[in-house]
Amino acid sequence: MNNFTDKIAILTGDPNGIGAEITIKALNMLNLPTKDIVIISNQKVLNKYGTIDGHFEIIPVEYSGKIEPGVISAEAGDFAFRCLKKACEIRPKYIVTAPTSKEAMHLAGHKYNGQTEVLESFLAHDGQKAEMLFCSKDFRVLLLTRHLPLNKIEITRELMLEKTERLRYYFQNKLNINKPSFALCALNPHAGENGILGNEEKEIMIPAVEALRKRGINITNPMPADTLFVKGVQNYLKAEKIPYDCYIACYHDQGLIPIKAVASNKTVNMTIGLDVIRTSPCHGTAFDIAGKNIANPESMIEAIKTCFV
Amino acid sequence: MNNFTDKIAILTGDPNGIGAEITIKALNMLNLPTKDIVIISNQKVLNKYGTIDGHFEIIPVEYSGKIEPGVISAEAGDFAFRCLKKACEIRPKYIVTAPTSKEAMHLAGHKYNGQTEVLESFLAHDGQKAEMLFCSKDFRVLLLTRHLPLNKIEITRELMLEKTERLRYYFQNKLNINKPSFALCALNPHAGENGILGNEEKEIMIPAVEALRKRGINITNPMPADTLFVKGVQNYLKAEKIPYDCYIACYHDQGLIPIKAVASNKTVNMTIGLDVIRTSPCHGTAFDIAGKNIANPESMIEAIKTCFV
Repeated sequence: MNNFTDKIAILTGDPNGIGAEITIKALNMLNLPTKDIVIISNQKVLNKYGTIDGHFEIIPVEYSGKIEPGVISAEAGDFAFRCLKKACEIRPKYIVTAPTSKEAMHLAGHKYNGQTEVLESFLAHDGQKAEMLFCSKDFRVLLLTRHLPLNKIEITRELMLEKTERLRYYFQNKLNINKPSFALCALNPHAGENGILGNEEKEIMIPAVEALRKRGINITNPMPADTLFVKGVQNYLKAEKIPYDCYIACYHDQGLIPIKAVASNKTVNMTIGLDVIRTSPCHGTAFDIAGKNIANPESMIEAIKTCFV
Repeated sequence: MNNFTDKIAILTGDPNGIGAEITIKALNMLNLPTKDIVIISNQKVLNKYGTIDGHFEIIPVEYSGKIEPGVISAEAGDFAFRCLKKACEIRPKYIVTAPTSKEAMHLAGHKYNGQTEVLESFLAHDGQKAEMLFCSKDFRVLLLTRHLPLNKIEITRELMLEKTERLRYYFQNKLNINKPSFALCALNPHAGENGILGNEEKEIMIPAVEALRKRGINITNPMPADTLFVKGVQNYLKAEKIPYDCYIACYHDQGLIPIKAVASNKTVNMTIGLDVIRTSPCHGTAFDIAGKNIANPESMIEAIKTCFV
């Protein structure tokens, strides 16, 4: 097998979604060196949605199902899953994943919560775990908790220590930033206002921050999230330096509202914590517009560009 | 007593905070018609922090305490409270409140959670309640719950019906918008993803939305908050029309993160639901910089300008 350790593997996702279309559009618009990229897909699927201008290497994955834009099918879900498996086998430097359908993968018997969990199951070793990082240029947000009902959110010391360590590892080993600065969002409004609006800051978060500082990590105390993001967002809009290398949010909406609000389609979903970095657009399969050649490739373009930083 | 029903009453807040300073700066920068405004304060307090250029009517409130920038005192808290009381007595059209200190008011025996609650206690009649609306130009956000620890947030049908009705009343009677459009944030990420990430959307929020629509209110289903705010924020930045007259957020950070992120110091805190509308800057007394003549009056300027829309 060839050596792919310096390459970016691009996957086209669910064959019935907009994945192949935005992949083709993105590659044609970006005009990247073909040697850096390998596409994991199926020629029939690609042909259905367009033509790639350059001569990129394609690792073929068998697909005997129908290509029916907008249809959720077990065959399509199984193909998306096998592309992910193949990507993990070749161990590239980056994996860029176009959107897949959780429902289609479940129909095919692959009961994962999403692509992140598939990658984790194939790649994690020695206690590694996948973490979700959202970014647009240098504006980055890590989530301490991911897809949970609001009333199930719980911040523990272990969670904070483990995830922040993984985040530091990413900065040190992938971005060559030796002492990154992290800004921590409080769980409660006004950072708990000294216990009046919640005790998690005093009882869990501040002690965890102190432990992290003893390990040499540069992290703020938990700060009121509504004011903490202001300067980051304002600087992003002015294309000035973001005050922190990464914001750490306690839960989904707290972290995603500010970055999506200003970066919109330029928001990239990254998976860190594994040996291979994965990037992906911040939207889904868009079955409702699949096959109509009207899908916007902007987020896919950003997902690919992020691998070239 | 004069008739103040068409006037804007401006209060200078805690005498030891930045309130008088930003009031003076704002009035001198705005150059407004003096006939529209009445200042409720104390001449000694005003003199300490600067000179107002125009000849505005001042309703004096006695103050025998010291003026000591940065000091939290019962006398200062009591003065701030009596200014609020006076403002409620004269029944102006708008009340603009510079920041007060909750701690100073508590020291003086006035055990309110904030100025909103003081105004509510003096002004509410016939079941009226104060609601917090945050706005910058036409970007507006109403909070369904205010200052609560994250794990105490609960959305009920009654809460949704009452607050949305009050919001409609405000648009119809104060802004002359007969059928305002409201966008509702879901409580849970992905709007609960059909029950996988929480049941409040299906069990409480959607039935409440249906009841509101039967009353003729134009309101969306609960939508994932991270995507719902994108177009509003992007349009705000381009000075284009915001897609909804008001966003309704389930809790503090969900609503305040997006508006503060883009509007920053231009965010105004409004109290609606009472006969008098109140506006206020979105920051506190800033005791640490009080008396140094370095406070930024931008948010106070916006709070006053909002009364002239």
